[in-house]
Amino acid sequence: MPPKPLVTLLTDFGARDPFVGIMKGVILGVCPDASLVDLCHEVPAHDVLRASFLLQTAVREFPAGTIHVAVVDPGVGGARRPILAEIDDQVFVAPDNGLLSHLFASAGRRRVRHLVAQEYWRHPVSTSFHGRDIFAPVAGHLAAGVEPARFGPEIGDPASLEIPRPRVEAASRIQGTVMWVDRFGNCITNIAHNELKAIADAGGGSIRVHAGGRPLGTLVGRFGEVLPGEAGAILGSAGYVALFCNRGDLARQWSLAPGDEVLLETAGGR
Amino acid sequence: MPPKPLVTLLTDFGARDPFVGIMKGVILGVCPDASLVDLCHEVPAHDVLRASFLLQTAVREFPAGTIHVAVVDPGVGGARRPILAEIDDQVFVAPDNGLLSHLFASAGRRRVRHLVAQEYWRHPVSTSFHGRDIFAPVAGHLAAGVEPARFGPEIGDPASLEIPRPRVEAASRIQGTVMWVDRFGNCITNIAHNELKAIADAGGGSIRVHAGGRPLGTLVGRFGEVLPGEAGAILGSAGYVALFCNRGDLARQWSLAPGDEVLLETAGGR
Amino acid sequence: MPPKPLVTLLTDFGARDPFVGIMKGVILGVCPDASLVDLCHEVPAHDVLRASFLLQTAVREFPAGTIHVAVVDPGVGGARRPILAEIDDQVFVAPDNGLLSHLFASAGRRRVRHLVAQEYWRHPVSTSFHGRDIFAPVAGHLAAGVEPARFGPEIGDPASLEIPRPRVEAASRIQGTVMWVDRFGNCITNIAHNELKAIADAGGGSIRVHAGGRPLGTLVGRFGEVLPGEAGAILGSAGYVALFCNRGDLARQWSLAPGDEVLLETAGGR
Repeated sequence: MPPKPLVTLLTDFGARDPFVGIMKGVILGVCPDASLVDLCHEVPAHDVLRASFLLQTAVREFPAGTIHVAVVDPGVGGARRPILAEIDDQVFVAPDNGLLSHLFASAGRRRVRHLVAQEYWRHPVSTSFHGRDIFAPVAGHLAAGVEPARFGPEIGDPASLEIPRPRVEAASRIQGTVMWVDRFGNCITNIAHNELKAIADAGGGSIRVHAGGRPLGTLVGRFGEVLPGEAGAILGSAGYVALFCNRGDLARQWSLAPGDEVLLETAGGR
Repeated sequence: MPPKPLVTLLTDFGARDPFVGIMKGVILGVCPDASLVDLCHEVPAHDVLRASFLLQTAVREFPAGTIHVAVVDPGVGGARRPILAEIDDQVFVAPDNGLLSHLFASAGRRRVRHLVAQEYWRHPVSTSFHGRDIFAPVAGHLAAGVEPARFGPEIGDPASLEIPRPRVEAASRIQGTVMWVDRFGNCITNIAHNELKAIADAGGGSIRVHAGGRPLGTLVGRFGEVLPGEAGAILGSAGYVALFCNRGDLARQWSLAPGDEVLLETAGGR
Repeated sequence: MPPKPLVTLLTDFGARDPFVGIMKGVILGVCPDASLVDLCHEVPAHDVLRASFLLQTAVREFPAGTIHVAVVDPGVGGARRPILAEIDDQVFVAPDNGLLSHLFASAGRRRVRHLVAQEYWRHPVSTSFHGRDIFAPVAGHLAAGVEPARFGPEIGDPASLEIPRPRVEAASRIQGTVMWVDRFGNCITNIAHNELKAIADAGGGSIRVHAGGRPLGTLVGRFGEVLPGEAGAILGSAGYVALFCNRGDLARQWSLAPGDEVLLETAGGR
């Protein structure tokens, strides 16, 4: 637990409605001292896989004991369970629909509980806004110091989505996909630091990058190593290879979108 | 007053400009300990009626003593008064232009004051940004513990808009309108819990829903009771009937917008 | 230093990604008691001049000792220095690329330092997200009470952009440009209070306004002095002349954008 309780929120609620503000009202009603931080509310509606990816990239910089509330919940009101997950030194409150898949996959230690203790919920519980009625009040009580074990029993089978993984096609070639396009048009791939290192070590020399079947450029150390308007790839700040256009918008210029194929190969490859 | 002062903001200022941040600077300059929560800043520009509706749906979850600053103020700089309203156990600071209409209509207890004590304002007062110069500093002083009576005298005639109300056409039929389209394309109507209950009790059996003159589906208990891609209606989390498409965007698919007619009738109705 | 440390953020990161949330996690990891305020994150990507203008209009209402983190950083990872600037009674952390130009130009007192003390940074330092790795942790340590001198040596040559200034064409005529279009379509010009006062004093009588080569209206005291749907100009809340359409969107109706010319002249002028 940090010196002052810290609660973050990640949802697909956007900015159009007061949904996020309402959740904050509930949290602060339970724990007035909590610090609240918005991670991201512009996850595409109902896109649990994308949210899982973004959540993993967002939480690693937060101090131990941070409570993260994540609500991308197309099955709200249905059979999916609400859960609390202790993953390494942080705590997550979310629907059990795969939203924590990336975190589970990289977790050193995890303990997951089914939220069943209704005394920590807001009543009456609606069928369409568990962010307000279950996840926010549980986060508030966690922030106020209630022990995780009080919220429900451990479960061993939390839902996990199949995460698209890059395919190593040869020691010097790796095939991945675009996972996310950021605000600048940079295309974040699913090729992580370790995988990149493997082909870099194998091939020696420069790494060439192809996207959408076309040669895009080479892997460089920073944006400024290519001329303004030209494309390249870097190991991005989230630990994944990212394709970019220096001072431009790559996704727009190259019409790239999540799901598009990305190929990395060392000079001796293709 | 909550243990730690809590101030929310609802405006039509959007995210493009630093207007909301500036108001927060003023509030924290007066009361550095305040917790600040954004309710919503994407109210359509100058749309006081829409803001009144959203404000009512947003504030009910906040703890007693919360101070809400609401600024949708097309008449800024003109004759409309700045007011402070104690409504039930919460406090509102806003222009007197009808922005509190929905709250007034459902209030148990209210006391409204004309803000005239200029020692609690920021000077010089501009003619175009009373959010910064009047409403934010007053909220800051309220958060710091200044009594409401210090800000100005009580008034008995705050402005109130005519709120579109549903029309009960028969014991088994009720006609309403779409008040708001949320981020998911759900259409929130002005048919509230009580009105729904009346026709449900009268008619028995299932309730059929028409929107824009076409049959849309039936009233169900949760999104998942209709197949993905199909439409229906639920009693939404804000206490109003909401039309939806399960895992889809109803407003886009049906071209629905605020003002469109919605008809509910029990099986024996039409 | 205010009673409780206050840190603001202004970036071109938008709302699509968790970048701003990540920076907040880093700041609160260092200084859990900090209050965080978003100034604006919708600066057009890489638009340092626009950011400099907005930053100046945003910070003046903040209390002494506020720490402002500003990150619009197209040259991230390159040679541009990270800096800390004490300007009058506030503190700024930013890349040295001209982002503080407007503040420098109006500063009474300033002291600028090159951030070199890497013990206050997050490691490893990426080449693409110094907001997370340098600016946020430095802001956190400042908020926690570390003295500015500890972060690096003073420099005398911080970068400054050429700021577009209005041209006084005659005692009764002044030519400026649109610097920013706000959410309401108001066009904020670079003609400041002092410059306006000069021609007002010189000419007497009303001041006529032309935009994009066409007569727009006159300078008035408040929006409501022109009829709804009609255009005019006021001295805006940020201290610059702003063109507006009462209850309408001037920029859209007149197709005005940053860079467009604005002419003010007194009645005796043209």
